[in-house]
Amino acid sequence: MPDFSIGVDLGGTNLRIAAVSGEGELLEKLTFGSQGAPSRDQVIDQMCEAIQLLSGKYKPAGKFLGAGIGIPGIVDLQTGMLRKSANLPGWEEYPVRAEIERRLGARVVLENDANVAALGEQWLGAARGIENMAVVTLGTGIGGGIVLGGKIWHGMNGMAGEFGHVTIERDGHPCGCGSRGCAEQYASASAIVRMAREAIASGDAPSLAKAASSDAAFSAELIYKLAIQGDEHARRIFCSFGRALGVLLAGMVNVLNLEMFVLGGGVSTAWDAYAPDMFEELRERSLVYAATAPPDPLRNGALEKKGASPHTANRRERTTTITRALLGSDAGLYGAARGAMLAG
Amino acid sequence: MPDFSIGVDLGGTNLRIAAVSGEGELLEKLTFGSQGAPSRDQVIDQMCEAIQLLSGKYKPAGKFLGAGIGIPGIVDLQTGMLRKSANLPGWEEYPVRAEIERRLGARVVLENDANVAALGEQWLGAARGIENMAVVTLGTGIGGGIVLGGKIWHGMNGMAGEFGHVTIERDGHPCGCGSRGCAEQYASASAIVRMAREAIASGDAPSLAKAASSDAAFSAELIYKLAIQGDEHARRIFCSFGRALGVLLAGMVNVLNLEMFVLGGGVSTAWDAYAPDMFEELRERSLVYAATAPPDPLRNGALEKKGASPHTANRRERTTTITRALLGSDAGLYGAARGAMLAG
Repeated sequence: MPDFSIGVDLGGTNLRIAAVSGEGELLEKLTFGSQGAPSRDQVIDQMCEAIQLLSGKYKPAGKFLGAGIGIPGIVDLQTGMLRKSANLPGWEEYPVRAEIERRLGARVVLENDANVAALGEQWLGAARGIENMAVVTLGTGIGGGIVLGGKIWHGMNGMAGEFGHVTIERDGHPCGCGSRGCAEQYASASAIVRMAREAIASGDAPSLAKAASSDAAFSAELIYKLAIQGDEHARRIFCSFGRALGVLLAGMVNVLNLEMFVLGGGVSTAWDAYAPDMFEELRERSLVYAATAPPDPLRNGALEKKGASPHTANRRERTTTITRALLGSDAGLYGAARGAMLAG
Repeated sequence: MPDFSIGVDLGGTNLRIAAVSGEGELLEKLTFGSQGAPSRDQVIDQMCEAIQLLSGKYKPAGKFLGAGIGIPGIVDLQTGMLRKSANLPGWEEYPVRAEIERRLGARVVLENDANVAALGEQWLGAARGIENMAVVTLGTGIGGGIVLGGKIWHGMNGMAGEFGHVTIERDGHPCGCGSRGCAEQYASASAIVRMAREAIASGDAPSLAKAASSDAAFSAELIYKLAIQGDEHARRIFCSFGRALGVLLAGMVNVLNLEMFVLGGGVSTAWDAYAPDMFEELRERSLVYAATAPPDPLRNGALEKKGASPHTANRRERTTTITRALLGSDAGLYGAARGAMLAG
């Protein structure tokens, strides 16, 4: 029986805890909803009990390699505290790691959720076998994680990979972070909805106005559906999204020169609608990308479906591959488990 | 007598070659001017002869650890060729490294000049003792080098650290690289001169117009002199430069979360004129910087003059230090020598 670790994904809506073998096999997964809006202490209770349950269950059969927790927000590695977390009110400036370690009587690894997602995709997903890569998570906002030499690049105190707050429009929209024109104001689910509402307000997009009025949950997903059905206004929004993402990625390719950038998060699945513009912007904006672009970059996003291995081709030709994540919401869970293994 | 390596700095105007001991002491330096505009082959002749001369001279006393060459342009590490070099016409698509290795009968390390400057500052300059740092070189354009774990971070094929071509103004000035709004269009010596000429053309800057008409070499240096003499138009140009540099650095701090960013190159010495605006922009634009800024960031730039060690303070407090380079034009020479030692 295999050695194993436990990964925890503490999302905005769910708490998921999994025992994962050293070879990357899922042994067991527990999912807790957030009904009743559990308090911080209740969530920590639930988490610690589940970790103890799973570790106790699989310990007789293999060595327990530790627990890793992915958490939405900026984690200060020194203190094990959250610097900033929009989705977990009441968690900031609270000694999260210390408290969990106290309850479990063991060391735990506390990581930003985008960092563990990056590690997950590198370990078992789109970037399997690629040592140096980054994940850009396109959700409500933009998260990011960088993996160098097969390990999370934390930077000085765990704050590296904040792609969402790189300026792409200098005098652009104000951002919750205090800056203006951050990437996540242009290439996230919230940005898509905002752009659609702006188009509606301008009176130029009757089809979007109709959709918005007939659907209370006017979401990025709905706008994507309109886009793939050929709605011109919806399509334009995804083109704009792709352009903005291209500006961000061009800068990151110029600075990091990584083999692969993996696009994860809910909105990344709208690939068909945004990828052509994204690649056009990348070619125009990044001399490094232009010099290393694969012959058919759009196809990289679909390579996995054809059974080919994107990184084998990549290795041979030394191209900059920009592709979609493969593990979906499990990336963070696997990555958290992997983080515990690497730390152990 | 010490083991040594040879560093070469192939600049736009000079060719400099130095034997440097493993402890970072200069043993001997040779400088060749570019009078008569020597051809590529003449430069390579000169370089190889000087390397052989110096290595022959110091070999009896210590082990020769190799030669490293810093070269302006994007070096493809796989092929040892220049992808792009504005300052060395005729060198592109020529097998530089292979040719030098053939002539010397030994392996040499060929690096981008900003990369070796970063390594030099990390080894013996402003970032001594700091494992993870970057240098942003503010010259005619903007160059950059990243050092992680005490080694140059090359990225996939040696193109990492292209800070100058990160977009900071999305619909901004066209850049030679094919993009628009690149950082080097706003925070370089060329940008300063362009901004001054724009101010003159608008008729709003009589003092600059006067200076330009009386000095054939209307340079960033002259504009800096006017700025420190209190000329309002010149001052404003450096404020704008500082803002632009702040936007660039804010993005890099958010992504890389490095302990130190060192500003090198000719224009970096105008610190007093641009640094206050740069730091203001950084605080506004980077949540990571805001969380890790030292209490008195402006002072970091002058710490070396007071005999204090910037990195001791930095280590203790885990701050993001942004400071000036210490080695001037020797950074690349020492860094090239260091690169050869690390490769050996």
